[in-house]
Amino acid sequence: MAGPSSLTIFFFFSLLFFSEISEASKCSLKGLPIVRNISELPQDNYGRGGLAHTTVAGSLLHGLKEVEVWLQTFAPGSGTPIHRHSCEEVFVVLKGSGTLYLAPSSHEKFPGKPQEFSIFANSTFHIPVNDAHQVRNTNEHEDLQVLVTISRPPVKVFIYEDWFMPHTAAKLKYPYFWDEECLEVESPPKDEL
Amino acid sequence: MAGPSSLTIFFFFSLLFFSEISEASKCSLKGLPIVRNISELPQDNYGRGGLAHTTVAGSLLHGLKEVEVWLQTFAPGSGTPIHRHSCEEVFVVLKGSGTLYLAPSSHEKFPGKPQEFSIFANSTFHIPVNDAHQVRNTNEHEDLQVLVTISRPPVKVFIYEDWFMPHTAAKLKYPYFWDEECLEVESPPKDEL
Repeated sequence: MAGPSSLTIFFFFSLLFFSEISEASKCSLKGLPIVRNISELPQDNYGRGGLAHTTVAGSLLHGLKEVEVWLQTFAPGSGTPIHRHSCEEVFVVLKGSGTLYLAPSSHEKFPGKPQEFSIFANSTFHIPVNDAHQVRNTNEHEDLQVLVTISRPPVKVFIYEDWFMPHTAAKLKYPYFWDEECLEVESPPKDEL
Repeated sequence: MAGPSSLTIFFFFSLLFFSEISEASKCSLKGLPIVRNISELPQDNYGRGGLAHTTVAGSLLHGLKEVEVWLQTFAPGSGTPIHRHSCEEVFVVLKGSGTLYLAPSSHEKFPGKPQEFSIFANSTFHIPVNDAHQVRNTNEHEDLQVLVTISRPPVKVFIYEDWFMPHTAAKLKYPYFWDEECLEVESPPKDEL
């Protein structure tokens, strides 16, 4: 019979072995099932309070080159940063309600005071390329859940501290929060505005 | 007081006037609200039994260039044709269940017997570029509802009569069913396989 110390060593190496597999498969396209249960996909807040993000179908995780689909839930009071990107983006609101802030002014020096639009379950909207925008759950009582499609993944995002920050001062966040783990960037792309 | 004939003429011209506006706005990007209620968007079966299709965000209807999003409901027994396209496509199953048939064999002369995958509410899958596929509602008791994202709209689809039809014999359907009304094509594109 194996002594306790042999067993301990065996379990230690098993643990090491399986954690290595799990680490490798997280960013690997190998062995992915064709049909995936969305609720079993990785979900995280990526350090952002109130957010639950799942990459439903993605560039880094699933090998897509032209589109990426996210499922995002925003707790009351939370939302995206004020930001812009040069890809197309379509939102479908699955649950809850909130506010879209949109500053269609990429020819000005800064976004300026945004227009406000109510968003609600079963509504859709898309963000014109390079327009600064923010989506927030402004409903105190309910989560806001959206399905988001972007083109040309992985997304390159320029973040504004406020609506009056110059476009040229907006800070590039690339790789974006959920792409950091699987994307190594040697030299970040230049401002695409 | 205006006589009945003046009133008739007035109503006739009003009708003509408003039907022209409605005709013009159906394929025009002007005056589109930023946030749209999906249940108020046009829905049609486009001559295909069991289908209810809505272009949630589209190339021809909403001016998108890189992605397009559809909401589709398939009654029990209905489905897509067997087809392929050279764009990326991501499905999210919102309701019901069914079967994905996928023939990953674009290097062979014809698709051949497809692999079958069960699809279910809250599942996702994407179709590799140019793989022949078909999605069917094989659940007798419930509608199958999917949200579909494609890249590079408007979609160019090659339709197979069966799984053993040669790739080169698959018939180009362009513009596709829901794009016919708003897309005029002078010379259809060549087979992209």
